[in-house]
Amino acid sequence: MKKTVAIYENALDHIKGRVDADQLKIQWIPYTKEGMYLVDGKRLNPQDVRVDYLWLSPLVSIEKFLPEAFEMALQTASIKVLQTFNAGLDHPFYKKIAALGTMICNSSAQGVAIAEYVFAQVFYRFHPIALQRQQQADRLWRNTPFRELSQSTWLIIGFGPIGQAIARRAKAFGAKTLVVRRRPQTAEHVDHCASTSELLELLPQADIIVLACALNERTRQLANRQFYTRTKPDALLINVARGAVIDHQALLEALDQEKLGHAVLDVFDTEPLPPTDRYWSHPKVSLTSHTSFAGSGTMARWNDLFLANIERFAKGERLENLVDPASLLD
Amino acid sequence: MKKTVAIYENALDHIKGRVDADQLKIQWIPYTKEGMYLVDGKRLNPQDVRVDYLWLSPLVSIEKFLPEAFEMALQTASIKVLQTFNAGLDHPFYKKIAALGTMICNSSAQGVAIAEYVFAQVFYRFHPIALQRQQQADRLWRNTPFRELSQSTWLIIGFGPIGQAIARRAKAFGAKTLVVRRRPQTAEHVDHCASTSELLELLPQADIIVLACALNERTRQLANRQFYTRTKPDALLINVARGAVIDHQALLEALDQEKLGHAVLDVFDTEPLPPTDRYWSHPKVSLTSHTSFAGSGTMARWNDLFLANIERFAKGERLENLVDPASLLD
Repeated sequence: MKKTVAIYENALDHIKGRVDADQLKIQWIPYTKEGMYLVDGKRLNPQDVRVDYLWLSPLVSIEKFLPEAFEMALQTASIKVLQTFNAGLDHPFYKKIAALGTMICNSSAQGVAIAEYVFAQVFYRFHPIALQRQQQADRLWRNTPFRELSQSTWLIIGFGPIGQAIARRAKAFGAKTLVVRRRPQTAEHVDHCASTSELLELLPQADIIVLACALNERTRQLANRQFYTRTKPDALLINVARGAVIDHQALLEALDQEKLGHAVLDVFDTEPLPPTDRYWSHPKVSLTSHTSFAGSGTMARWNDLFLANIERFAKGERLENLVDPASLLD
Repeated sequence: MKKTVAIYENALDHIKGRVDADQLKIQWIPYTKEGMYLVDGKRLNPQDVRVDYLWLSPLVSIEKFLPEAFEMALQTASIKVLQTFNAGLDHPFYKKIAALGTMICNSSAQGVAIAEYVFAQVFYRFHPIALQRQQQADRLWRNTPFRELSQSTWLIIGFGPIGQAIARRAKAFGAKTLVVRRRPQTAEHVDHCASTSELLELLPQADIIVLACALNERTRQLANRQFYTRTKPDALLINVARGAVIDHQALLEALDQEKLGHAVLDVFDTEPLPPTDRYWSHPKVSLTSHTSFAGSGTMARWNDLFLANIERFAKGERLENLVDPASLLD
């Protein structure tokens, strides 16, 4: 019997030439922006459809009907596996769909892009690029010394695909890499791997602190007032996780009181960030619009991950990026 | 019998606490800014001094008496080994001192810093940092997509310590690495290693071209008119070698005729670059003041290399960074 694979109709157009559906014994079930399934040319309500595998494609977010797609998924008669474009599954939808018995695969496609975003921001802080451009405009021949990454210590909080991609690259530059994760264990490219209980001990060593963890009850407001009592006054904090990992009042105080050098923020409690937010104009904050994923290779990696996973699914093999339901439900 | 090690007097102050001269059986011979040696409290002319090992410290250049130090070395009764802070030995002094029978060790201390300079410049071109800062000033919440290094092909011309440091880092980002060097041989972190005769064949693949070769009769004006007929119209050229590796008229034409995207230039035929040079104001040129070496770790690596090498020398071991005299004399 054929496995049913539901996919946003516009996403299917991009991808179906790459899959031999007959060979894999899968049946495509396109879904529409309005949250209806298309089966054998008929539009069906989600309540009347059973789906083996649903691909929540990034186009769902890009075309701005994510709330409708979440609702459709929750209304569907059954979904065995839901694969999402999201890396972080803190949205309440994921807890609800997991409670219905659906297995969830998240995405690692953003890791490469986010790591590159992090390095671009670090290099811009460490190298006097703005001064170099100014000296060129002024026809001024003068050395521009710079801080080396090779001399830096990184503290990476969270060690999923994003944290791992960052550690690998930091190590290639000869940096020292410290990692804080839920279950500490040695890993390639990591000098010291610790649990959250060691966080305050490690912070005073860190020149660059990267928040790359899932948002959950353990990590909510992890970067709180106590956290900033331990940071180096010239440390660079980068948040590519979720806004709520930071206590924002405490961060602003830390920057104002010179307990921390600079913050690069890509994620916020409310997005878009309201125009009245103090971050926009803070001289020690570089902010971007939740854009760290937007690398030129991300879409291809999203598609590759989906295609590889439905092939595994069709063959009954172990899926990649399968999330432990306990991490959502507890 | 003690080996004599000559070192600029101010450089000796920084370093002598790190060496047990008695144990290594070496005798320090400080030299002055005026090009005199200090032996047992007496100032001696170079003509009257035999030196086993001379350290041409970077302070000689920083304190601006390099011409006097070159002259002192050439006048010295004999020097067995000269270790210099320079990575490139194209200055005519090196040919002259080699012709006197002196062995030369060059420096690999700059490689790490220069590699970091290259990545800082590449990231600034690939990531819309300036746009991000503008959007922040305008309180504009809008994605800023970027070109990934993971999707890029690098062509590294020259594979000494600098080229190797660049290839290792590019590989960590998942880039494709092509190398052109005098003696092609496979190497770690390199996808394809070729000789100069393959250069024109490889150029059309390259998104990023890094000139990191020695300047010699093979590489002089290597980036000539023919070179730019093969480059991608959006390729980024970075010169951290020597100015004369580029035919400057051809480069300016290539940029003006959209045969090349952008050039990052740190080295020039005449330094300081004259204020009338067209490069200063060219919109497709980012220029810096021969500053790619100026990382925060370079001085320590220079000192480490010197200390490790005099220890090897004292023990009769093989020296690091010993240059093949044929590469200077032919």
